[in-house]
Amino acid sequence: MLIDLRSDTLTRPSPGMKEAMFAAPVGDDVFGEDPTVNALEEKIAKRFGVEAAIFCPSGTMTNQIAIRLHTQIQTEVICHKYSHIYLYEGGGIMANSLASVKLLDGNLGKITAAQVAESINPDDVHAPETTLVSLENTMNKGGGSIYTLDEVKPIAALCQEKGIKLHLDGARLFNALVETGDSPADWGAHFDTISICLSKGLGCPVGSVLVGSKADIKRARKVRKAFGGGMRQAGFMAAAGIYALDHQVERLKEDHIRARALGEMLSKLSVVSEVFPVSTNIVIARLEGVSPEEFMKKLSDLRIKSVKFGKDLVRFVTHLDFGDEHLEEFGKRIQNI
Amino acid sequence: MLIDLRSDTLTRPSPGMKEAMFAAPVGDDVFGEDPTVNALEEKIAKRFGVEAAIFCPSGTMTNQIAIRLHTQIQTEVICHKYSHIYLYEGGGIMANSLASVKLLDGNLGKITAAQVAESINPDDVHAPETTLVSLENTMNKGGGSIYTLDEVKPIAALCQEKGIKLHLDGARLFNALVETGDSPADWGAHFDTISICLSKGLGCPVGSVLVGSKADIKRARKVRKAFGGGMRQAGFMAAAGIYALDHQVERLKEDHIRARALGEMLSKLSVVSEVFPVSTNIVIARLEGVSPEEFMKKLSDLRIKSVKFGKDLVRFVTHLDFGDEHLEEFGKRIQNI
Amino acid sequence: MLIDLRSDTLTRPSPGMKEAMFAAPVGDDVFGEDPTVNALEEKIAKRFGVEAAIFCPSGTMTNQIAIRLHTQIQTEVICHKYSHIYLYEGGGIMANSLASVKLLDGNLGKITAAQVAESINPDDVHAPETTLVSLENTMNKGGGSIYTLDEVKPIAALCQEKGIKLHLDGARLFNALVETGDSPADWGAHFDTISICLSKGLGCPVGSVLVGSKADIKRARKVRKAFGGGMRQAGFMAAAGIYALDHQVERLKEDHIRARALGEMLSKLSVVSEVFPVSTNIVIARLEGVSPEEFMKKLSDLRIKSVKFGKDLVRFVTHLDFGDEHLEEFGKRIQNI
Amino acid sequence: MLIDLRSDTLTRPSPGMKEAMFAAPVGDDVFGEDPTVNALEEKIAKRFGVEAAIFCPSGTMTNQIAIRLHTQIQTEVICHKYSHIYLYEGGGIMANSLASVKLLDGNLGKITAAQVAESINPDDVHAPETTLVSLENTMNKGGGSIYTLDEVKPIAALCQEKGIKLHLDGARLFNALVETGDSPADWGAHFDTISICLSKGLGCPVGSVLVGSKADIKRARKVRKAFGGGMRQAGFMAAAGIYALDHQVERLKEDHIRARALGEMLSKLSVVSEVFPVSTNIVIARLEGVSPEEFMKKLSDLRIKSVKFGKDLVRFVTHLDFGDEHLEEFGKRIQNI
Repeated sequence: MLIDLRSDTLTRPSPGMKEAMFAAPVGDDVFGEDPTVNALEEKIAKRFGVEAAIFCPSGTMTNQIAIRLHTQIQTEVICHKYSHIYLYEGGGIMANSLASVKLLDGNLGKITAAQVAESINPDDVHAPETTLVSLENTMNKGGGSIYTLDEVKPIAALCQEKGIKLHLDGARLFNALVETGDSPADWGAHFDTISICLSKGLGCPVGSVLVGSKADIKRARKVRKAFGGGMRQAGFMAAAGIYALDHQVERLKEDHIRARALGEMLSKLSVVSEVFPVSTNIVIARLEGVSPEEFMKKLSDLRIKSVKFGKDLVRFVTHLDFGDEHLEEFGKRIQNI
Repeated sequence: MLIDLRSDTLTRPSPGMKEAMFAAPVGDDVFGEDPTVNALEEKIAKRFGVEAAIFCPSGTMTNQIAIRLHTQIQTEVICHKYSHIYLYEGGGIMANSLASVKLLDGNLGKITAAQVAESINPDDVHAPETTLVSLENTMNKGGGSIYTLDEVKPIAALCQEKGIKLHLDGARLFNALVETGDSPADWGAHFDTISICLSKGLGCPVGSVLVGSKADIKRARKVRKAFGGGMRQAGFMAAAGIYALDHQVERLKEDHIRARALGEMLSKLSVVSEVFPVSTNIVIARLEGVSPEEFMKKLSDLRIKSVKFGKDLVRFVTHLDFGDEHLEEFGKRIQNI
Repeated sequence: MLIDLRSDTLTRPSPGMKEAMFAAPVGDDVFGEDPTVNALEEKIAKRFGVEAAIFCPSGTMTNQIAIRLHTQIQTEVICHKYSHIYLYEGGGIMANSLASVKLLDGNLGKITAAQVAESINPDDVHAPETTLVSLENTMNKGGGSIYTLDEVKPIAALCQEKGIKLHLDGARLFNALVETGDSPADWGAHFDTISICLSKGLGCPVGSVLVGSKADIKRARKVRKAFGGGMRQAGFMAAAGIYALDHQVERLKEDHIRARALGEMLSKLSVVSEVFPVSTNIVIARLEGVSPEEFMKKLSDLRIKSVKFGKDLVRFVTHLDFGDEHLEEFGKRIQNI
Repeated sequence: MLIDLRSDTLTRPSPGMKEAMFAAPVGDDVFGEDPTVNALEEKIAKRFGVEAAIFCPSGTMTNQIAIRLHTQIQTEVICHKYSHIYLYEGGGIMANSLASVKLLDGNLGKITAAQVAESINPDDVHAPETTLVSLENTMNKGGGSIYTLDEVKPIAALCQEKGIKLHLDGARLFNALVETGDSPADWGAHFDTISICLSKGLGCPVGSVLVGSKADIKRARKVRKAFGGGMRQAGFMAAAGIYALDHQVERLKEDHIRARALGEMLSKLSVVSEVFPVSTNIVIARLEGVSPEEFMKKLSDLRIKSVKFGKDLVRFVTHLDFGDEHLEEFGKRIQNI
């Protein structure tokens, strides 16, 4: 049995999800006539307590659309230096929106209102105008770390005061919510836009949703068109999203329990000097005396897959297709390292 | 019974296609591990006699990626003024590639090598450098008109001579091929890239494929990433594409036969002054004495849907879900106009 | 004696202007401390009855800044297909502002309110949003043709009604004003921004000014910075502008008188089939039986310089350094053709 | 007497320079016919041992043109996080070239080959491709620190090996050269392009020059056109550049001597906790117990001008218009702090 912990994007639809997908009524979403896409957009907007939502092929697209909405040429985005939007979206902030970045450092991938306050550019011809702050929750490169609402509120208040927009890359937001017990609407209230990925922990095959105001989502449809994200009978995939929201949210807790167990197992290895605090479904181990490449080779020989996540870091992600039996097996196999 | 002739994008998957979708093995295509996506890309590349292919969420994305590949900031694209890439892709040529456009006029939406030759910018600081010519076959705004290979070859030769790239928006290329009898490889040989839409006449729910050289398609994957077109378990949709290539190409001829019949029916209406020559599955009727809005209202009252296509033009598109019984019914209903 | 009629940009500063340039007090304009630049900006803003002005290295920069101010990514600019902003600014509309163009045709390079009304894009995801109309007065490719205020007013009214910005490329606006008798303020009242070139008929060595609202000009300073148009002790050049506004505006009429005479001379040549109506200082001759290259070669042999201006067109521009003696000599020489 | 140490851009032309400006033959540089601009470009290209050069209105423009030449959409520039190109050019890297930035940290604003090697992005769809490294010499935010050739050579070798371009923002390169004794050609040999500012220590009113290969400078002319940097009779300003290269290079040493003296004076103040090592004409003082605003207010009351350069930093720059008498006076006045 292969134990694939490279990412929670690797999951295949559960039987129930697949059934829902192929039973879904579909139409042409470019004409606004796919009933399942419409239902998903309405459902998720309602859950977040916001006006509108748009379904897109990927979380990169929902993030990149949001950045386009909240910037102009010669403006600047403030985010953590380890943000997905900066590191992993093909240079999209600059390529799609011509915006500059102010990259902040901070513990476990998180930034504070005080840091943001210091980083807002002055009103001066030399500097691009700061128009957007973007957070990520949970924070992938921070080891799946969680922002609490108490951490977010002062940032939101500062943005409001300064007329700066606030976006949340919520690729794994539901992982945070099931841990903190916050409702989606608690979060919807503090951001201009939130991107929610359906194809990570939620287990859908394809897609992300961007939620926000009616006006922003209207413009988002125009941006999506030029990016080439307008799909026709997308309802097959949207149906998976609806199913996930109904049946696969609470179970994220199980991924977190297994991740914590997995973190403990790893921490006992002599080549592991540190495991990042495990808050959700991501486990990052720091190696010593062995390179990520060597360590991953050993794991691979044991039929365990992981990804390199920095000079001396390896990442493991638990997910829908990683059950207790996989965890147990994982524990057994790594004793051979 | 509703007769919906607004577009061939409106079709829902046939039972056989849906079965294929449901049975497809899938994986994470961002890791390059979706076997069905890989199979589709290989199949279509092989059919066009080119090195590589990439599956994307839409034809706008495959076109926009191609434009990005073949231009740089401050270059210019030559195309017909009625091209989809200029009119209907959200300003993408400029917004995605910062390229200028030289818009040519020409009969039935087609341009000639002589026109292209005249439109190549001189080597002068004032003018953007011409680096791309883009054709569209069949030509939507030309009434589904067909470029012959004999028309294309001198354009391709000129481009080659001048070091200019040649792209084909082949959203409906298979409609042209079943009429002319050319093979896909005949066309693959003359273009740097071709975009082929699966969700129009071919009847798939979602997706387009861009074919080209290995180097170009490699870069295309990077562009797709920044546009947000990287999808995870996209194999469900790719399976529809494979099915369509195997089972739903030849039947495009039926759409054309019905389109011709439909064109004749329309030409008999007193309010129709002209029907564009019907070459494939698109019928454009010019009205006189009635506005498109009024005419479409009358049709709508008869449960027939069409789209406005210019000041005095209305478009009808035949497709997989429009059979002989719909055609007959269409004929009956419009006698009431 | 060389008779150089290629452009009115070729003039060298008159002795009075040169004296003014080198007597000018200067400072660092990036700090806002060049008194002569400040004086020029105030003077021209006042003359046009607007709030503010900014001095830039070229008319291309003032046009391109204005376009940036009035567009966003995925918007569209309406202009004549022969506009300088489209043809001669290096693809800047797209390269600098990522905006699309709607290119209108019209007599002598001019467009009408009715044409503009028809060209405003619908509120639809497929089309970029129309946010700017740009006119050019006088119109270079129209043979120095003049827009009257009566032609402009309905366009301005339409733009106002639709929330669309209106820019004037007034590279040669003063040529129009001395003919019509309109005041600069008459024109300042109808446009959001006007670009005025100092280095054409006005005879300055370098520079253009953009006038508009305080808010727009404030943003213009930021755009100018990123284009690299912020200059230090620019007062030497601004002084030329002040001198020109004080001493070299009215004399543009002389250029027009000589241009008309020159047009008549040309019209008598057997190889000239038509001379465009001469309204200001530009004369465009259509050739027959001889190519522009051949004709220009003959002229060149007679020490007369002109520029090719299309397939069968040649352009001549009168200016400060072309006096009555040059005109007379021109008449003599061309009798040898 | 006002002692203005805010920047070396504040200088006014010396009498000899002004005379040279006034006497310069000029022409229309857009036609390539300004003999003085041509002479300056040839002179500086020759001095740097490179093929070609282009005169532009500012150092921001020469830097931004270079970045455009060496990047494409979705590529990345490696530079120090305190680089002028990132901090002070209006977001131009992104706004003009749509390129991403990798921001390195390093002592006195300098980076090493080892850091660069680690920062080159992998060949992966998620990351923009690294195509350019940009250095700055002297380094403004590093307190006018100097890169030695020995530091630059391994970076240049690495770039060559990896097919990455290397640009030098040499706004104050001559300040470095007069200290190290390197020749311009020593530096020209290691970079693809170098931007040299004429309006800083060299004392010209306006302008910078970009040097590089013939092919690059040819393309640079096209980029300059779209930025609006094409000027007409620019020879007046170019003449100042020629004069500066002939007469005002060696004297930069005097600025450095005075800067060192000034640094020592400042270091004795109780509110100054540290003065950055003074290598050239820039002096950065770190304050303690007083804010930059308060300190600068005190200086201002003593008729001394400086600029804030960070949370607790103030910058002073010596220049052509700051002589021994100003230095002495400076020393006297600050005893009152």
